[in-house]
Amino acid sequence: MGVTSHDVAKLAGVSQPTVSRALRGERNVSDETREKVLRAARELSYVPSETGRSLSTRSTQRIGLVADDLTNPFYPQLVQPLRDHLERSGYRTLLIADHVDEPVEIERLADGSLDGVILTTTLLGSSLPRELKARGIACVLANREVADLVVDTVTVDNRAGAAQAARLLADLGHRRVAAILGPHDTSTGRDREVGFREELAARGIPLPAHLVRRGEFTFEAGYDAVTDLLTVPSPPTAVFCGNDVIAMGARCAAAALGREVPRELTLLGFDDIAMAGWEVFALTSVHCDLTAMAGHAVRLLMDRIKEPAKDAEHVVLTPTLTLRRTHAAPEHTLTSSEDGPGR
Amino acid sequence: MGVTSHDVAKLAGVSQPTVSRALRGERNVSDETREKVLRAARELSYVPSETGRSLSTRSTQRIGLVADDLTNPFYPQLVQPLRDHLERSGYRTLLIADHVDEPVEIERLADGSLDGVILTTTLLGSSLPRELKARGIACVLANREVADLVVDTVTVDNRAGAAQAARLLADLGHRRVAAILGPHDTSTGRDREVGFREELAARGIPLPAHLVRRGEFTFEAGYDAVTDLLTVPSPPTAVFCGNDVIAMGARCAAAALGREVPRELTLLGFDDIAMAGWEVFALTSVHCDLTAMAGHAVRLLMDRIKEPAKDAEHVVLTPTLTLRRTHAAPEHTLTSSEDGPGR
Repeated sequence: MGVTSHDVAKLAGVSQPTVSRALRGERNVSDETREKVLRAARELSYVPSETGRSLSTRSTQRIGLVADDLTNPFYPQLVQPLRDHLERSGYRTLLIADHVDEPVEIERLADGSLDGVILTTTLLGSSLPRELKARGIACVLANREVADLVVDTVTVDNRAGAAQAARLLADLGHRRVAAILGPHDTSTGRDREVGFREELAARGIPLPAHLVRRGEFTFEAGYDAVTDLLTVPSPPTAVFCGNDVIAMGARCAAAALGREVPRELTLLGFDDIAMAGWEVFALTSVHCDLTAMAGHAVRLLMDRIKEPAKDAEHVVLTPTLTLRRTHAAPEHTLTSSEDGPGR
Repeated sequence: MGVTSHDVAKLAGVSQPTVSRALRGERNVSDETREKVLRAARELSYVPSETGRSLSTRSTQRIGLVADDLTNPFYPQLVQPLRDHLERSGYRTLLIADHVDEPVEIERLADGSLDGVILTTTLLGSSLPRELKARGIACVLANREVADLVVDTVTVDNRAGAAQAARLLADLGHRRVAAILGPHDTSTGRDREVGFREELAARGIPLPAHLVRRGEFTFEAGYDAVTDLLTVPSPPTAVFCGNDVIAMGARCAAAALGREVPRELTLLGFDDIAMAGWEVFALTSVHCDLTAMAGHAVRLLMDRIKEPAKDAEHVVLTPTLTLRRTHAAPEHTLTSSEDGPGR
């Protein structure tokens, strides 16, 4: 095209550095000047060379955001505010897929095209955060952490949240409790399980192996598990679900089997994503502030880019229980007759 | 870090161009050689300069994907397969936000950092496709089109789909029909309205203004509209919704008001996203194959990048009706007494 920033500067009647500053969106340019520059750039169909800029500043203004399948309703709840926060900080978001069967590799992140990386899907044993750190690439873990806490993290206190769920079931009088847990090799899966088991044990409530199911954090995992759990000889009166998406699958399976929630079955979720509040679910759930999580993650990343050598920071958010309409006391006739010595 | 591709070549025992080819993922490198190169690169913590590469090839291998809020369940259904198809074609996805109150501007797309752009949120009157074309940036419209068909598009036949929905309502015997439509200034909103109105008119069924609501393609729009529509003097027996997300809001509002679907109210959606099949919705909906749409969009974009000057191509997919459990004949007692001359 041949049009340079000097041509734009000439037409707009400003200096070339002012054109660059205006087009980069820097603050020290008046609205009026910015308007003049944008008008001139449009008129000349000027394309600033992003590549040239990144060679001169050694910054790409791009952040890699590693997330799982966005059709799983959990991920948009975290990806969306992350993207919004990054955009407000002047960064663009490269969306990078991470699938269980095709995990993201260091080469895709360390090709010089990114200023930093936010990981949301990391498995406990992943070496990726350490490798990124070794190559000097700013990295923050959001939602999940790894065993090896070398980089900045922001998580919720999953153990405390799961303990709150267990306490609610105990207080309601449930004694035949089931759990549909997330994967063992994720910190969310592990910590929610530990917190739930510990609190149940403290209240003297058993969690027998045949009432525990484990799977991915998906609708299908919840649907299949409840279809199965409701057909065992003494079915549970309450099910703790490893996250809301599992709980939604559980809710739909209960509906398909004609079981009334919460009269015949209590269901608890985790995360409290927006859909949990929809009338057809009205899910009682452990609330995690994912918008706050995204805000912290982006702040940590910006701080890390500025100061690569500082100590790793770990932000832990406190979850709270959101009470809606999927919890109730167990039906007495049912539990007393089935638990009784006559059987 | 100072490590260059020459160091990697030396350690791997291959030539420097082979290192570049192997790290770019090109096919003319044996698996064995690629393994050797990757091992050496890892050992040396080598970071290939993506910026240098893009200066030499003039290609960034990045596509901008412009989408609305991902927490709206429609968008992940399109963004996810688009991202997957782009990744399989060797491209990375830059996720770019487009909001009604803050529309995406040409400067954010034409900064030299993208090889092409897929737009999914374009308003009918948008000049963006024409501006991108003028600057030589490959551009494809997916899902929505603009009045001015200068670039490649892939859409569904929204008029035909909406006509199918109208025919179903007519065949079931509905005479008091309402519609919750999407925005006027989108092709999906406009074409679904036209198709629905035309077919209703052909069947002699009125669509009075007081039973038409219009809003964004959101859960809230559907929820608020049905809350309102069910409290008018002669409420509708059926509601056609501009998309599934609106229909899910409508479904939840009906539940909140204690109305049975479909016995007391028929609800029809549009798009047939995965959630429409969930037991709690079991939504009868006009099915659009969004995975096929994504495949066509990426193919069109790849063709356009290779051959910038060829004629614009327009792919139109044919929708089909998916019958689930939100449609039924109107309740006779209700309609006959309320329609009768006694009132």
